[in-house]
Amino acid sequence: MNTLNHTHEAAAKSWVASAQGHADFPIQNLPYAVFCRKSGHEAWRGGVAIGDEVLDLAALQAKGLLSGLAAQALHEASQSTLNAFMAMGHEAWHALRIALFDLLSSSASEATQNAVRNCLVPQTEVRYNLPTQIGNYTDFYTSIYHAENVGRIIRPDDPLTPNFQWLPIAYHGRASSVVISGTPFRRPMGQAMPPGTKAPVYGACARLDFELEMGFFVGPSNALGEPVALKDAPSHIFGMCLLNDWSARDHQFWEMNPLGPFLGKNFCTSISPWIVTMEALAPFRQPFERPADHPQPLAYLDEASNRAAGSLDIQLSVAIESVAHRTASKPASRISATSFKHQYWTTAQMLTQHTVGGCNLQSGDLIGTGTISGPTASEAGAIVELSQGGRVQVPLHETGEQRTFLLDGDAVIFQGWCEKTGFARIGFGSCSGTVLPAIS
Amino acid sequence: MNTLNHTHEAAAKSWVASAQGHADFPIQNLPYAVFCRKSGHEAWRGGVAIGDEVLDLAALQAKGLLSGLAAQALHEASQSTLNAFMAMGHEAWHALRIALFDLLSSSASEATQNAVRNCLVPQTEVRYNLPTQIGNYTDFYTSIYHAENVGRIIRPDDPLTPNFQWLPIAYHGRASSVVISGTPFRRPMGQAMPPGTKAPVYGACARLDFELEMGFFVGPSNALGEPVALKDAPSHIFGMCLLNDWSARDHQFWEMNPLGPFLGKNFCTSISPWIVTMEALAPFRQPFERPADHPQPLAYLDEASNRAAGSLDIQLSVAIESVAHRTASKPASRISATSFKHQYWTTAQMLTQHTVGGCNLQSGDLIGTGTISGPTASEAGAIVELSQGGRVQVPLHETGEQRTFLLDGDAVIFQGWCEKTGFARIGFGSCSGTVLPAIS
Repeated sequence: MNTLNHTHEAAAKSWVASAQGHADFPIQNLPYAVFCRKSGHEAWRGGVAIGDEVLDLAALQAKGLLSGLAAQALHEASQSTLNAFMAMGHEAWHALRIALFDLLSSSASEATQNAVRNCLVPQTEVRYNLPTQIGNYTDFYTSIYHAENVGRIIRPDDPLTPNFQWLPIAYHGRASSVVISGTPFRRPMGQAMPPGTKAPVYGACARLDFELEMGFFVGPSNALGEPVALKDAPSHIFGMCLLNDWSARDHQFWEMNPLGPFLGKNFCTSISPWIVTMEALAPFRQPFERPADHPQPLAYLDEASNRAAGSLDIQLSVAIESVAHRTASKPASRISATSFKHQYWTTAQMLTQHTVGGCNLQSGDLIGTGTISGPTASEAGAIVELSQGGRVQVPLHETGEQRTFLLDGDAVIFQGWCEKTGFARIGFGSCSGTVLPAIS
Repeated sequence: MNTLNHTHEAAAKSWVASAQGHADFPIQNLPYAVFCRKSGHEAWRGGVAIGDEVLDLAALQAKGLLSGLAAQALHEASQSTLNAFMAMGHEAWHALRIALFDLLSSSASEATQNAVRNCLVPQTEVRYNLPTQIGNYTDFYTSIYHAENVGRIIRPDDPLTPNFQWLPIAYHGRASSVVISGTPFRRPMGQAMPPGTKAPVYGACARLDFELEMGFFVGPSNALGEPVALKDAPSHIFGMCLLNDWSARDHQFWEMNPLGPFLGKNFCTSISPWIVTMEALAPFRQPFERPADHPQPLAYLDEASNRAAGSLDIQLSVAIESVAHRTASKPASRISATSFKHQYWTTAQMLTQHTVGGCNLQSGDLIGTGTISGPTASEAGAIVELSQGGRVQVPLHETGEQRTFLLDGDAVIFQGWCEKTGFARIGFGSCSGTVLPAIS
């Protein structure tokens, strides 16, 4: 058995019964979160998802079952934030993955199973915190379909800016307003310039939107002034989560020229609690297919291994659950589905571009990929695209409602997963948030 | 004597001899920094400038001279970062200011003077650290002259975007690359689209610039979803420093459409070590004069007290010290001078706008004011303005050199001070940084 790959084997089974064929968290996944029990006043600590359970890493640490690098990694992964664990790098991450896989495998001894069983907490009994202290949050803009869709709304004559195909565009986001999935947020107040008016108005956002994104977390840091070459970029990426870059389109479109989005974005950004490691995602890598008539990347952004396996086929869905859905106990209405594989730039290219001028990334930093929209209209990752700037109603079939933008009480729910013949399906769980009315 | 104002009295004197008539740090100033001695391996701790000395707040704390709120404030101000001190709010800041003033006043008892004298460290013997752990760094864009000057270079037909007169524009900056004055930085590598070319090039920045700004630090935080009204905004601002928002214009102008500056700014931002409190700056407040034919602010950004005293007359200068200056032992060449009073929006308006949508500011956050350019060409706060986009040479009289953009080895030195009849002059010291060659 290849020790680098045995944690991916589809046939591998866990003694945790709920992990067998679990849609998100079979033994092949082993994603990390920071959690505590809902009841009591427990400390936040690291956990790993297995089936319907959380493996409590602080409790596991106390059992003293691991040794060497895996034990050191477990110590850091059991803390109240995962920054120090992410700083350790791939060798440590891999050592702990192998060790946890072996502890949870059906081939583990009965004594091991009994010891580890005591460290399991049902996911229904826990709540989650942000997985890291996010030093800085950056958001990229790497879907050409999203850029074209939104560009057509803002600049009909010139939808795609000339830099898009040459570099992964990004802006700095607001780290303090990143919240964990499930946290409701107020509809923001702000300034907008409604069409046909001569002066802006102050009021509650009238064009509230979501943005379907992935986030990724920085592993080892780089020093100020020291760029990370593309070949080294993957070793600086720990794992990924789902990310909702909530957007107040009316505020954003009025404020953003010339310095970019600010208040239109910084009122709330939601992330899923579970971080799926790049090692778990490895089987779902695939070549990135840049159209032949597009410019090829400059050398510092172009590398054979990135072209060969820089894209990730992560399937994604967006659903809205309105007040009417909850009242009638209807399931949420899916309004879009796409895949992360369509992004124009890879996570490695994003990380290298971020550091090319010397910017220092720090362990635990959060980087968003930008809205993920696929090539067809139904694969759009924002409601401003699905509704074509508010001109077309988006149907919510389960209730007969429709939307152009989000209403108070709407919850938006993202789900993400990877499926491939010969491998176990793994998932991210969900990322959700509910719109509260604006402050009066 | 009015206890609220006695620390401003021009006649007040300190028993610290060098404080008498000091250009920056008389007893009326009392700015804060985080410092340690250059020699040895000392811990970072808070300090207050008095004349040519630093009052070591950790040493002072150990003397046990203060009581009540002032003692609590001293405890927080003596830590390795000032975040907790800033979180305490105006009453605590004021209590400590009064207490330090009394300890340093020539009317202090001989016993007090002897005790405090033991806590002084010559400024020549110390080095400085960032004063806070900067959770987030935001940069505004509030000089109408700068916006017009730069706008004419980028968009000659429409220099001022329509939102400028309606809201203080801002973008999120990079907190991790904020450094303390004196820290050199590498000329950044990156992509640019030189005029007349069809494909971008990768290389060292060819249009390296500074931006003359002030920074201000957030005091008490506001919760996510809870805006700060304009009348309450001043109580959330602790004090100000000098700030250099170094800019790679060629990289910036190629990357910034549509999401704003990113790599063009995030390679380095320098701040001065000393934070001058808003209480020390109070005598230099003055009415903000918005031209009568400009739109008046919307109600949430408009308040009588802000109009009456929202502007601050902080005089500012920019000088370049090149390798040739150092070789010939020439003083740095002043290339610009202006005042912060010309900014179109006040610090209170910036803070209120930042929170209007619910964004949560955290104690110790750094907020830049944007480049400070005055109404005439010689008052511009960036070399791209002084050189009119690189078309006009800026003379360095002391050496006979000239510049359109910065060269390797150039140090840029900002100074800031306040002068007014009937009050002691107070200053910010200087903010400097030196350009190192690009990585090879």
